[in-house]
Formats: sequence, structure tokens, C-alpha cells
Amino acid sequence: MSDDARWMAAAASLAARGLPLSRPNPSVGAILVRDGRVVGRGWTQAGGRPHAEAMAIEMADDSAHGATLYVTLEPCAHASPRGPACADLVAAAGLARVVLGCQDPDPRTAGAGLARIRAAGIGAELHPSPEVTESLAGYLTQRTKSRPHVTLKLATSLDGGIALASGESQWITGPAARAHSHVLRARADAILVGGGTLRADAPRLDVRLPGLEARSPQRWVLTRGAAPEGWQALPSPQAIAGMVNVQYLFVEGGAQTAAAFLAADLVDRLVIYRAPIMIGGGKPGVGDIGLGSLAEAHDRWHLIDRRQLGSDTLEVYENAPCSPE
Amino acid sequence: MSDDARWMAAAASLAARGLPLSRPNPSVGAILVRDGRVVGRGWTQAGGRPHAEAMAIEMADDSAHGATLYVTLEPCAHASPRGPACADLVAAAGLARVVLGCQDPDPRTAGAGLARIRAAGIGAELHPSPEVTESLAGYLTQRTKSRPHVTLKLATSLDGGIALASGESQWITGPAARAHSHVLRARADAILVGGGTLRADAPRLDVRLPGLEARSPQRWVLTRGAAPEGWQALPSPQAIAGMVNVQYLFVEGGAQTAAAFLAADLVDRLVIYRAPIMIGGGKPGVGDIGLGSLAEAHDRWHLIDRRQLGSDTLEVYENAPCSPE
Repeated sequence: MSDDARWMAAAASLAARGLPLSRPNPSVGAILVRDGRVVGRGWTQAGGRPHAEAMAIEMADDSAHGATLYVTLEPCAHASPRGPACADLVAAAGLARVVLGCQDPDPRTAGAGLARIRAAGIGAELHPSPEVTESLAGYLTQRTKSRPHVTLKLATSLDGGIALASGESQWITGPAARAHSHVLRARADAILVGGGTLRADAPRLDVRLPGLEARSPQRWVLTRGAAPEGWQALPSPQAIAGMVNVQYLFVEGGAQTAAAFLAADLVDRLVIYRAPIMIGGGKPGVGDIGLGSLAEAHDRWHLIDRRQLGSDTLEVYENAPCSPE
Repeated sequence: MSDDARWMAAAASLAARGLPLSRPNPSVGAILVRDGRVVGRGWTQAGGRPHAEAMAIEMADDSAHGATLYVTLEPCAHASPRGPACADLVAAAGLARVVLGCQDPDPRTAGAGLARIRAAGIGAELHPSPEVTESLAGYLTQRTKSRPHVTLKLATSLDGGIALASGESQWITGPAARAHSHVLRARADAILVGGGTLRADAPRLDVRLPGLEARSPQRWVLTRGAAPEGWQALPSPQAIAGMVNVQYLFVEGGAQTAAAFLAADLVDRLVIYRAPIMIGGGKPGVGDIGLGSLAEAHDRWHLIDRRQLGSDTLEVYENAPCSPE
């Protein structure tokens, strides 16, 4: 891994701190490096301001002179009532070099930020990376597909069961896996379950992690009927296009809801927690998705992460990785 | 890992070469090391003779003097019409030291081999390791449980399906995973499927790997009825105790057969090939095993191996690891 790749990955991991409170803005990460040392860093703050670059440059103060800026998304070229254009700020900061993780697909910027920095005589280049694409997934999905980025979560046994035939489902996975799924919930803007799951389990779907309770996302239920108080009704998977202020949607089941989203090809990411148990004759995690043949099922899901959480395994699969270039 | 552990692991991997043709003997591996170099090596030959130690010592010839012998199983203390006791052979070979992976539970040896080597003035010690236990699993299971070691194989989608609802099951996994399962077949003494699978798929269950066709194991079907020609009938999972010349049994499904063995707690190892596909509403790999609660399902299966085979993942789980000490 080159130094550039390492710093860019670090900027991408800073960006994660901004989720989900940066909405409606994407969460961007920025690092200022001079002589191999970090002199400034930033990420998009709650509500979208300040931007990451502004925060990093302000932190660095005079040390910004001659530094290299690593920023996950192209600095914006449009001023807004809420603040100046970051491209101007960057161009005026006396930087030696700027490395961008991703061109901004927003037509108001889309290359104009990069051009403005270069016009100021600063060397600027694009350095795309999987970490950056991942950190901007919600924003890029909204821009390219006009809908939120959708993660489907499953917690299963080795043989694919999410509950006993009796319905007992607490617990398949252990405390580490459950805490991890609460972290993912805390990073989502909205969470959705099926009507059956809502009626059967009455899940609270809030974030039960100390200090993160306030992050609890919008609660949605997949139903053609009315939603109970505190919930919003989504009549169909396709209706996610109309969700407001939602970059990241976290779908928690049950089997029919999982199947509806998969059948509509509206799942960008699978997060599967697998416990080392056999249930045998249990309830499957995914209902009928109308697959016509096995050939259709292949070459769609790509493993991007796997780790142990206690004795459970977390696997993350991506559906045809989105590529902003 | 110490040098002893490394050499012992190497001996265990040599032992794998003897499977399954060493039957009815366990396949043992032996390495002779002098001044950090291998001067002899051996593994149990077809039909059980020569033994690994004899082969290694014969190969080393004079170089055996002053060497250290690493052998996965305690050398036998009983002469047989088929050859001398290995303990005597080892005691007479001029070795400096002997390291044993496992005491032989066979009452004719059970410590007597070790004692005879020590009586000859040779330093001998036990150095148990997971690799050695694994390499002797079939033998140790026969000795301790009076039945073959049972591996249950599943090839599933991410959501636990082994076929579409239509029955289509070719292919869930890719060529690398299928070739790997043929290698495991080639190491088994017997293979078993359920009656339904036999009727529906008429599986050949032979080894379709160049050079290994002759390794094709005994073919068994789980049925209370008669078996077709070339097959043997197993009336119940418990009846595996009566299988002759079978140290390793490989159970290939289907779902009812898998469930019958799991319900009887007669599965020592799970081998799960998982393809990165979602089937949704497919056939599950495991039928009802009569689980009363989720608590019963936990703390049974331990992950011992995981690797990628093309885009598929192989996972191996062990049921309460058998420990010979």
C-alpha cells in the first residue's frame, strides 16, 4: 500500500464518524499531512457543516502551508448560504498538493472543484480506492440510483435458520454480534422491518448502545396499510426512492421483506451474522425471490469483509460494487 | 511454533497420504530429522504395512543414528504375523530421541511402546497437537466410540439453500469446491446418502479426479429397505457401528439424512461449502432435528478451518473435539 493509499484510507475511516448525522450531506473525511505528520483532520459535522476540508484546514492553521490534503470527495465548487465553496478554501490555503478519493457526481461540482484547485497552481489528482467508495456508498447510490443505499441484515444458523419452527429466535447470535448490529443501526438513517415481524416481535429497533441512543434512526414498516405510531409505512421496496433524508437504509427482515427487496434487486449489501449452530428444520431467513434458475443467482455477491465476533462470523457481501468513476 | 511442533505437524500431514488405503490400520506419519534435515520419512502403506516408522528408518539407513524420530502415533508394542513391533525397531535404530504425537489407545500398546523405547535408553516424550489428533480422527473415534468418524457435507447458498424449490441443484458451488469435495470423498472409506437423494439424483458418488478413481469408497444408502446393486443399506444412523473396514464415513445428504445423523449426535465434523448466492425459498440442507430450544444448539460446533475455494467458502466445524489424552 502506498503512502497515498494509506492516508486516503485513513481519511475514509474518519468519514465514518460523520454518519449518519451529516445528512443530508455525504460524510466526507479529510486529512492534512506535512512531512509525514498529520497537521489537520476533519469530517462532515452534524447537519452537513462545517465540511471536512474546512475543519481540517482550520485545525492546521499555519501548518497547512506546504501540506498535502487527502479528502475523500472532491471539494465542492458551489458556495451556499451555509458556507463558502470548499474548492476556494482549499485553493487559498497554501497547500502543496491535493489528493481526492472520488469526483463529486453533483453536477454543481463534478470536476469543477478539481479544476479550480489546479487553476490555483496546486497539484491535484484523483486516487480512488475501495475504502473511499465504501465510505460514500449512501451518497453515491442516491446520486446514481436516486434511492438510498440498502443493507439487508440476516442473523442465521449454519444451516440458514433465523428461528426455530416454534418461532424462538432469541438468541441465534451472541452479544458481540448483536452489539455490532446496533452499531450498524446507529449509522443508518432508517430501519425497516416487515409487517409480520412488527406484529410478531414488536421490535423496538432503537440503538441500545450507551451514548448512541440518540442516533436511533427513522422506523419504517413494509406494509400497504397504515403504520403504527412512531413508524412510517413503505408500500413497496421501490417506494424507498421517496424516503426523505435517508442515505442509508437498514433492512432487518423478516423473510418476506428480505425476499421482496432481493426480488426487486434493491439490496446493495448483505450483512450476515452466522452463529456456529445447527437448527435443522428452522425458519429460513429469506422467502421466495422468484429465482428461475441457479445460473441467475451467480456472479452477483462479492465478499468484502469477514470477521469473527465472539464465536459468530460476520460476512459482508456487496451487490455489483458501485464505482463512481 | 517450536521446532518440535513444526516437525510433528509435518508428520501429521504425511499421514494424510495414507488415507484411506491404510485401512484397517490408522494412517500414521513419521519423519526422521538429524541436524535440522529430514533423513527419512514414511506413512502407513496400503493395507496397513509397512508402518510409517519402518518406512522412515529404512529410508534413513545409517543416517538414522543420532536422529530424532517424530511419529504421530505411539509405535506398536505388539509383533504381528505381518511384521515386527515398531517399538523394537525404533529402539534398535540408534536414535537420539523420539517424539510421539499421541499415545495409542490400543490396549496392546497403550504406553507399552513408549516404555520399551525409554527402556532402550532413548529419550521419548509425548507432544500432542491438534494436527495429530485431526490426522488420527478416524482411528481415535473407532477406539473411543466404537464407530466410524462421521463427516457431514453441505453445499449451500448464503441463505442455506441446497436446491431451488424446483429441485435444481447443479450447481450451487463452483468447480474448485466440487473438486475439493471429491478429494474428501477419496479419503473416506464409505459414503452415504439418503434414500430420497439416491432415487432423485441417482448420484454416482465416485471419485472423479484423475488418478484417484480407484479410491472410490464403499457406497451406502440410509434405508430400511434393500439397497440397489453396488450399494449397501444402512437401516439407521446408529447402525454405522457395524460398518466393516470403515474409519471415515462421509455423509452427503439430503436434508432428512443430515437431520437423522445430527439428531442422533453422530456427526463429528461439518464440512460446509458456501456459494456467494442467494436462493430465497430454496430447499434447506437440514431437516427437522427435533431441537427443543436454541440454548441446546449452542457450544457444540467449533470452527477449525476456513478457506476460499474460488468464490466459494469452505468451513469445517468440529463437534466437541476428541482428545486422546
